[in-house]
Amino acid sequence: MPRELFTWIDPGWAFALLTLGVLAAGLAAMSSEQAADPLPSWNDTAAKKAIVEFVRKVTTEGAPDFVPAAERIAVFDNDGTLWSEQPLYFQMAFVLDRVKALAPGHPEWKEKEPFASLLKGDLKSALAGGEPAAFEILKATHAGMTTDEFAKIAGDWIATAKHPKTGRLYTEMIFQPMLELLAYLRANGFKTFIVSGGGIEFLRPWAEKVYGIPPEQVVGSSIKTKYELRNGRPVLVRLPEMNFFDEKAGKPVGIHSHIGRRPIAAFGNSDGDQQMLQWTAAGGGVRFLALVHHTDAEREWAYDRASFIGRLDKALDEAKEKGWTVISMKDDWNRIFPFETK
Amino acid sequence: MPRELFTWIDPGWAFALLTLGVLAAGLAAMSSEQAADPLPSWNDTAAKKAIVEFVRKVTTEGAPDFVPAAERIAVFDNDGTLWSEQPLYFQMAFVLDRVKALAPGHPEWKEKEPFASLLKGDLKSALAGGEPAAFEILKATHAGMTTDEFAKIAGDWIATAKHPKTGRLYTEMIFQPMLELLAYLRANGFKTFIVSGGGIEFLRPWAEKVYGIPPEQVVGSSIKTKYELRNGRPVLVRLPEMNFFDEKAGKPVGIHSHIGRRPIAAFGNSDGDQQMLQWTAAGGGVRFLALVHHTDAEREWAYDRASFIGRLDKALDEAKEKGWTVISMKDDWNRIFPFETK
Repeated sequence: MPRELFTWIDPGWAFALLTLGVLAAGLAAMSSEQAADPLPSWNDTAAKKAIVEFVRKVTTEGAPDFVPAAERIAVFDNDGTLWSEQPLYFQMAFVLDRVKALAPGHPEWKEKEPFASLLKGDLKSALAGGEPAAFEILKATHAGMTTDEFAKIAGDWIATAKHPKTGRLYTEMIFQPMLELLAYLRANGFKTFIVSGGGIEFLRPWAEKVYGIPPEQVVGSSIKTKYELRNGRPVLVRLPEMNFFDEKAGKPVGIHSHIGRRPIAAFGNSDGDQQMLQWTAAGGGVRFLALVHHTDAEREWAYDRASFIGRLDKALDEAKEKGWTVISMKDDWNRIFPFETK
Repeated sequence: MPRELFTWIDPGWAFALLTLGVLAAGLAAMSSEQAADPLPSWNDTAAKKAIVEFVRKVTTEGAPDFVPAAERIAVFDNDGTLWSEQPLYFQMAFVLDRVKALAPGHPEWKEKEPFASLLKGDLKSALAGGEPAAFEILKATHAGMTTDEFAKIAGDWIATAKHPKTGRLYTEMIFQPMLELLAYLRANGFKTFIVSGGGIEFLRPWAEKVYGIPPEQVVGSSIKTKYELRNGRPVLVRLPEMNFFDEKAGKPVGIHSHIGRRPIAAFGNSDGDQQMLQWTAAGGGVRFLALVHHTDAEREWAYDRASFIGRLDKALDEAKEKGWTVISMKDDWNRIFPFETK
């Protein structure tokens, strides 16, 4: 760039021009922001008002509840909070598909539980063996390969597998109002994290593209890995050994381990999220705690206290007792999935 | 704000004004940036040139080595890389001070190893008991309290404890050239992470203030914690059980667990960082690998292959073999600590 081009621009003058430009653009943006609702899939009910009011409080500089941007941490459960979880957790569908894909190399599975039942599609009998059976399945499908290999397996599956009821990709069965909420919080200086009972390595290959949440902001359950040089090339090998369960009382542990500071907002949908909400609530200052309540049997599913998947019972009682926000999918959301036309 | 104030501002006009302002300010900034060196404590040697060249390559849009900002992850060891580590790791000084502070409540320590030797200041005899002895010390000083309590203990200590040789606060014994490097990388869209063999909970209370690195970007060794309700209040209790050693082959594991993608730049100083550099180097595309070599006995310390603390031997060989950058503190840095006057 020729020197003359910028030597005639006096920094003081440039700064004045910049200030004026920013001011003008800011005013114009304000005027259009008043028109554009950042949460259009949310009805104008108490839940939406509470969210907007919370964000206003923590972002208003000089106000008593102001929170510096660096401390605006919001955590989100995944299954049932950001995407659906019926008729069974989507990672379980991945497991079933993996067992089928691997079966030709394991002729003994035809006779051997829990695989024999799995291959017949009988999940209930397969899991009758309890935790040891579940662990056998986990080992067979999630361990033994390198982390790069597993990321490819999970990424390939999620790119093509379809949900049995809707026929949609699983990544299409995400909740449009929660996408808007994630974007709204980030636009207000929040860092958004997933804190899932699901596998951290199952989530990371697609969470950034689907939710805008980068790998370093995903917390989840994990198995141990081991560093090795294979023909001089470093790999991390996934071992058949649990490292961490990011569920129930594990969620505050996972949050503390990965994030190292307490969130000011937490969103869940089941008893598995109760301790995460308690931990978030117990910090000083204003907090936002919410549970997504699956109340819409027509557009999604309706279940709570009696459900095997995503049971919401104790946490619902605590929400009522403590005044946490309960988001009714039927009443508070005018749109559930991005593919719905309004 | 009265409506009239922004209705007269046409968004298109505001945008044009903003563009002009940004352009003018950008040109002015370029002209002053050419004058202001972002790495003034680095001599104009090969190390500095290599860093600047690497940053130029990965940030030049459209160039073959361009890396999107989201993937610009840089990892830094702490002890010996961001701050000094002699005559012993600073966290060991914390341990010695904790043992002294806790001794009045443990009269039995006067007779009981490894505490008896520690209280006499005889670290060598204390550690003669090997790993079990080290673990006894760790349990006594790092476990049993809540995470909030430990953060306060570590934060209070670091705010007042002084280094035996310089009489300075430990947080003053950080390397000015590395502070400049951290800021320079962040200004170029990098996310900077600490990946330390030291305790994650020991680092987090002060890393943000001292290095500008937030708690969620600190990876380190850890002990297990457990979620509990104490009088209805949630706490995380630090258990006398190791969770993770973030050292040597543990560093790639810690990086993968916390960050979930491969760094493109890694800075260490000892054999404990060798695998972190290998793991970083093995990704596709351009990479920057560097070792800080302690070569300045006058201004800091000089040590490498024979040192018990921060031994640099195998990693130095690999650096020479692979062409990793070796930063000589004596030759490449014109200033070491922020408190030095030039």
